[in-house]
Amino acid sequence: MMKPVGIVGASGYSGEELVRLLLHHPQVDLAAVTSRQYAGQTVAQVFPKFAHHPRSKTLRFSVPNAELLARQVQVVFLALPHGVAAEFAVPLLRAGVQVIDLSADFRVKNPETYREFYAHDHPAPELLPQAVYGLPEIHRAAIQQASLVASPGCYPTSVLLPVIPLLKAGLVKPTGIIADSLSGVSGAGRKAELDYLFVECNESVRPYGVPKHRHLSEIEQELSLAAGGTVTIQFTPHLIPINRGILTTLYLAPAEHFGDAKGMAELGEKITSCYQAAYGNEPFVRLLEGKALPDTKNVAGTNVIEIAWRLDPRTGRLIVMSAEDNLVKGASGQAVQSLNLMCGFPETAGLV
Amino acid sequence: MMKPVGIVGASGYSGEELVRLLLHHPQVDLAAVTSRQYAGQTVAQVFPKFAHHPRSKTLRFSVPNAELLARQVQVVFLALPHGVAAEFAVPLLRAGVQVIDLSADFRVKNPETYREFYAHDHPAPELLPQAVYGLPEIHRAAIQQASLVASPGCYPTSVLLPVIPLLKAGLVKPTGIIADSLSGVSGAGRKAELDYLFVECNESVRPYGVPKHRHLSEIEQELSLAAGGTVTIQFTPHLIPINRGILTTLYLAPAEHFGDAKGMAELGEKITSCYQAAYGNEPFVRLLEGKALPDTKNVAGTNVIEIAWRLDPRTGRLIVMSAEDNLVKGASGQAVQSLNLMCGFPETAGLV
Amino acid sequence: MMKPVGIVGASGYSGEELVRLLLHHPQVDLAAVTSRQYAGQTVAQVFPKFAHHPRSKTLRFSVPNAELLARQVQVVFLALPHGVAAEFAVPLLRAGVQVIDLSADFRVKNPETYREFYAHDHPAPELLPQAVYGLPEIHRAAIQQASLVASPGCYPTSVLLPVIPLLKAGLVKPTGIIADSLSGVSGAGRKAELDYLFVECNESVRPYGVPKHRHLSEIEQELSLAAGGTVTIQFTPHLIPINRGILTTLYLAPAEHFGDAKGMAELGEKITSCYQAAYGNEPFVRLLEGKALPDTKNVAGTNVIEIAWRLDPRTGRLIVMSAEDNLVKGASGQAVQSLNLMCGFPETAGLV
Amino acid sequence: MMKPVGIVGASGYSGEELVRLLLHHPQVDLAAVTSRQYAGQTVAQVFPKFAHHPRSKTLRFSVPNAELLARQVQVVFLALPHGVAAEFAVPLLRAGVQVIDLSADFRVKNPETYREFYAHDHPAPELLPQAVYGLPEIHRAAIQQASLVASPGCYPTSVLLPVIPLLKAGLVKPTGIIADSLSGVSGAGRKAELDYLFVECNESVRPYGVPKHRHLSEIEQELSLAAGGTVTIQFTPHLIPINRGILTTLYLAPAEHFGDAKGMAELGEKITSCYQAAYGNEPFVRLLEGKALPDTKNVAGTNVIEIAWRLDPRTGRLIVMSAEDNLVKGASGQAVQSLNLMCGFPETAGLV
Repeated sequence: MMKPVGIVGASGYSGEELVRLLLHHPQVDLAAVTSRQYAGQTVAQVFPKFAHHPRSKTLRFSVPNAELLARQVQVVFLALPHGVAAEFAVPLLRAGVQVIDLSADFRVKNPETYREFYAHDHPAPELLPQAVYGLPEIHRAAIQQASLVASPGCYPTSVLLPVIPLLKAGLVKPTGIIADSLSGVSGAGRKAELDYLFVECNESVRPYGVPKHRHLSEIEQELSLAAGGTVTIQFTPHLIPINRGILTTLYLAPAEHFGDAKGMAELGEKITSCYQAAYGNEPFVRLLEGKALPDTKNVAGTNVIEIAWRLDPRTGRLIVMSAEDNLVKGASGQAVQSLNLMCGFPETAGLV
Repeated sequence: MMKPVGIVGASGYSGEELVRLLLHHPQVDLAAVTSRQYAGQTVAQVFPKFAHHPRSKTLRFSVPNAELLARQVQVVFLALPHGVAAEFAVPLLRAGVQVIDLSADFRVKNPETYREFYAHDHPAPELLPQAVYGLPEIHRAAIQQASLVASPGCYPTSVLLPVIPLLKAGLVKPTGIIADSLSGVSGAGRKAELDYLFVECNESVRPYGVPKHRHLSEIEQELSLAAGGTVTIQFTPHLIPINRGILTTLYLAPAEHFGDAKGMAELGEKITSCYQAAYGNEPFVRLLEGKALPDTKNVAGTNVIEIAWRLDPRTGRLIVMSAEDNLVKGASGQAVQSLNLMCGFPETAGLV
Repeated sequence: MMKPVGIVGASGYSGEELVRLLLHHPQVDLAAVTSRQYAGQTVAQVFPKFAHHPRSKTLRFSVPNAELLARQVQVVFLALPHGVAAEFAVPLLRAGVQVIDLSADFRVKNPETYREFYAHDHPAPELLPQAVYGLPEIHRAAIQQASLVASPGCYPTSVLLPVIPLLKAGLVKPTGIIADSLSGVSGAGRKAELDYLFVECNESVRPYGVPKHRHLSEIEQELSLAAGGTVTIQFTPHLIPINRGILTTLYLAPAEHFGDAKGMAELGEKITSCYQAAYGNEPFVRLLEGKALPDTKNVAGTNVIEIAWRLDPRTGRLIVMSAEDNLVKGASGQAVQSLNLMCGFPETAGLV
Repeated sequence: MMKPVGIVGASGYSGEELVRLLLHHPQVDLAAVTSRQYAGQTVAQVFPKFAHHPRSKTLRFSVPNAELLARQVQVVFLALPHGVAAEFAVPLLRAGVQVIDLSADFRVKNPETYREFYAHDHPAPELLPQAVYGLPEIHRAAIQQASLVASPGCYPTSVLLPVIPLLKAGLVKPTGIIADSLSGVSGAGRKAELDYLFVECNESVRPYGVPKHRHLSEIEQELSLAAGGTVTIQFTPHLIPINRGILTTLYLAPAEHFGDAKGMAELGEKITSCYQAAYGNEPFVRLLEGKALPDTKNVAGTNVIEIAWRLDPRTGRLIVMSAEDNLVKGASGQAVQSLNLMCGFPETAGLV
């Protein structure tokens, strides 16, 4: 029995990646895709790369219509800009459709914080209490019961998964955290803007959005939850010339000075244990060992996040590094992971 | 009257860039280039891209020979691996030739530190006292008098120029400094290693050398000098898929909490003044204004370093970002800048 | 019942791609992988990108040993340099193992031609009669019966699939054919050579091997077979800065002048019919329609080849263009397609 | 005495490259730059990469105004879309200003051909007779006398310079010529279109405009002139993921069959002599020798075009390959070369 699902806003990069994943999902029938721009065209016409999949020739983009969708599918992925997504979620939820929203609209619990970071009032604050932050490794049980999942942003995923277990275990201080992130250009979306032209990005590296990026709001919310108190972090995103991938380097202060080599070894063992306990059995978290360090090319196209860490005896700091595919674990793959949890499918279905 | 100069080890990326710059230098006669591998071939044969320059057809690579060089040229650039460079410098200096060394051999004043970071004894410790660290914006007067210049590394330049004025002015704390750097692949040198193949670097981003990179030795030496006390920093290099360029993001703690908006504005003015005083008249330092942030594509092929900064009222931190071409301001261009100082040429000769 | 298969030479790019495909193949047990260089290490250690697959942690690279392999597996893929591959095939075949060779050793039927193009005597000419050229769309029936398949080269696949049906149908002349091909850098193999360093390939495009590339031998053999007479073609390969993909542009002369618009329309219909008859039901050939033209990004990571064509009324020529992933349809995917045929699996197993 | 010149449409890629070249030109005063979009801003603000040049801080973009320009400068470069350029040239020429047009408007002598290829009537056909096609190596004398130069397109330059001498010498047939070209993305201009986004171009190669690209009109005009009769060619452009550069591979038929090795050697000598006679003393044409083949990375940023050729004894064909920087020799550098000729400056001024 295949689950009928739909994608609203299927022509952006996250939407396209959802199409790829859902066309091949063994328990899903991709029954509806919407796009104002491409309405009337088939998936095969809009995305030639999917044209060898039989479904791509019969499935046509339609104009988004909540009422119609509610009759066609049981779950809807929203790959829309923030603000618009929330408005679209309301009638879908009312009609009993489960919603997995890839925008930022339901990630931040506090509508004040939302207004501060997104510069407009929250369009549906009444839905915030029921929204679950869709980070399966952290909120698995809640996702399984959710009708509305707020799928995390790409940067937040790359920061939260490495840091939350350390904070929960009290191994690092909740203060002074720095996250330095490098993102591929697909993170900017499929937008016809000069800044993202090939010639402007190739042979270029640049920071942007310094010092207050919107993703800080959800990062700090989730870190605060883990730390049991308010956490404020430093976050600097950079644009680098790759299609896919985020590499995040985190600078953390161990809760206690580890002192000499012996102290360092002991702390190292605690960190290893902490990560093993948190992620040892997680299918999509790869804890690197030995000399290995994360590399985006090793996670591209997969739902895996790589994590490695080093203690620095010279500075007393803990450096943690993560790599993920911003469109998969950082967006659409993670959303499918939530779908699997919500529908009782194996969590890895369609993702390996 | 043209100055006869030579390049030892002219077939690597820094050597090639020196050839480019010196072929077009208005006061220099590039009289000798050496390379064991290409001995006997002309510059035009080894580097087709320079073949439209008439000199490239008559200038032949020779096997490096200090005695012979001392008869041909008055200044020698050493673009050799560390260890080898120092050995080569000894007879040249004895013969009265001025030496500009692009290796690490004469950058670190303390031979113990050299051994710690480079894993072998210093080959010519007796020369260390006379070596001048070739960062013209900081050590201009000493370079003008030097017979031996240790030209800085690419990462150190990107860290030192932004940080030294702030430390000297007491505007930031000498503790807790973090430098997160992103380097193009030419920084790894022209080496036939799998790690630097196109397929291994394209669509890849990765940290390396964490947490103790060799360049830390010279960075900390120069920062300590500026701070008037020992400075230990955190430094994380990353490899990104561009040919040229380093982007460094620095996390600094202002010496005093700046508190409210007014305090922030005051500190901002001090930082602006500090940078203006240090670099307002420097031909190769570009202090960005307004919303502009550094971008490696804006400095590629030039000897310019771009610097921008932001105060973050949320964390109380100062973030400084720099961009340079690792082969020009980070290596060969800076070495030519030192040449100009040593020879009494205009400092910008051959560099604009 | 899973088929035990092995890969000899699994650490190059084709070998790595075979590992990827076979780890996920639903009817295959990847039971042996060999590599002198990595013997003793697990697949997960050598290729971190496969480390989320459970088998990667237990499967270890071994030193290649035909006798041992013959006890472990029923089919062996050879991803070895030419010359070496043939020597390795002999004992495997004798031991009753089926062999799919990705090298050039068994592609050319005539050992004289082999010597002309590969500059050494054929190491096992006695096996040539039984070898089947592994282009499934052309030699499907023979592959199903084969014990030794010579899997085609990447360039040949991109030329042969577009041209063979036209030649067979007599729609184009067998003379004057030109193939102009652009290949990603993985086509050069995982070799530590200066020419393939990131810095040497990025921002570079260059022809190479002009005018007599080795792949001509197999291309002309297969085209001659299709044409029923000797075919000699012009072939120019170029290296372009992408990881994966080949784009081939073919210049062909229609068998008869098509003259006016009406003649052009008629010929166009014949070409459409010809391709439809040849490939209309092929799962891995995508015949583009309307204004679409091939693009390597639409086939990357898949076993699909895209084909489009245009008649030029100004010159009377037929231009055919193809795009494929050089490591999949151009190498390892096609080899798995042959495996599926040889073993009676669905032809698309493990390839979609 | 510096020549005052202006650039109309200085914010596109060709315009930007003109700014770069003219800022450093020793005999030019860049006195005016126009751009509707950036009017009021300085060159340093719009192009941070030029900000270390003192003139960039005082030179402001203005709204294009022919009357005003005629008072400020003696020569104007038009870097405008076709159609618009011609309209702008009229008042400038009337006011006695010399015009170098980088658009296609004055390249095609026949207004019928212009309409056929550009789909609108020529805006100023009365000016066509006085326009000189600005290929200095071919039309040097005429350019020296010209008041209106039509600077060639990037593809045409890469085709014409290699082919014209061979046609003039009667060494190749004027029929059956094929030009297969690969262009970097800057050739598409600085346009905010989805097709040219980083993610759409990176890891992608694709033909476009098959089979009738607009540049054919000027290519065939100039080849016909050289051949003394109508020449029709096949031309296929492809988009490849580099910023700058065009690589063109030309397939030509020698005028007579060269037959055996001796005939091939004799023809080879004639070709060598032909190119030597044509370009042996040209400062911007590099005739490659030995095994060298063109590579865009060897011409990037320079006004040089590289040319190499091979005879193929198997097919009887002559293959000629060229590489140029599409923005320099293919556009702005060549335009400056014409400026130098028109003004009596050394032809290489500002270009080496």
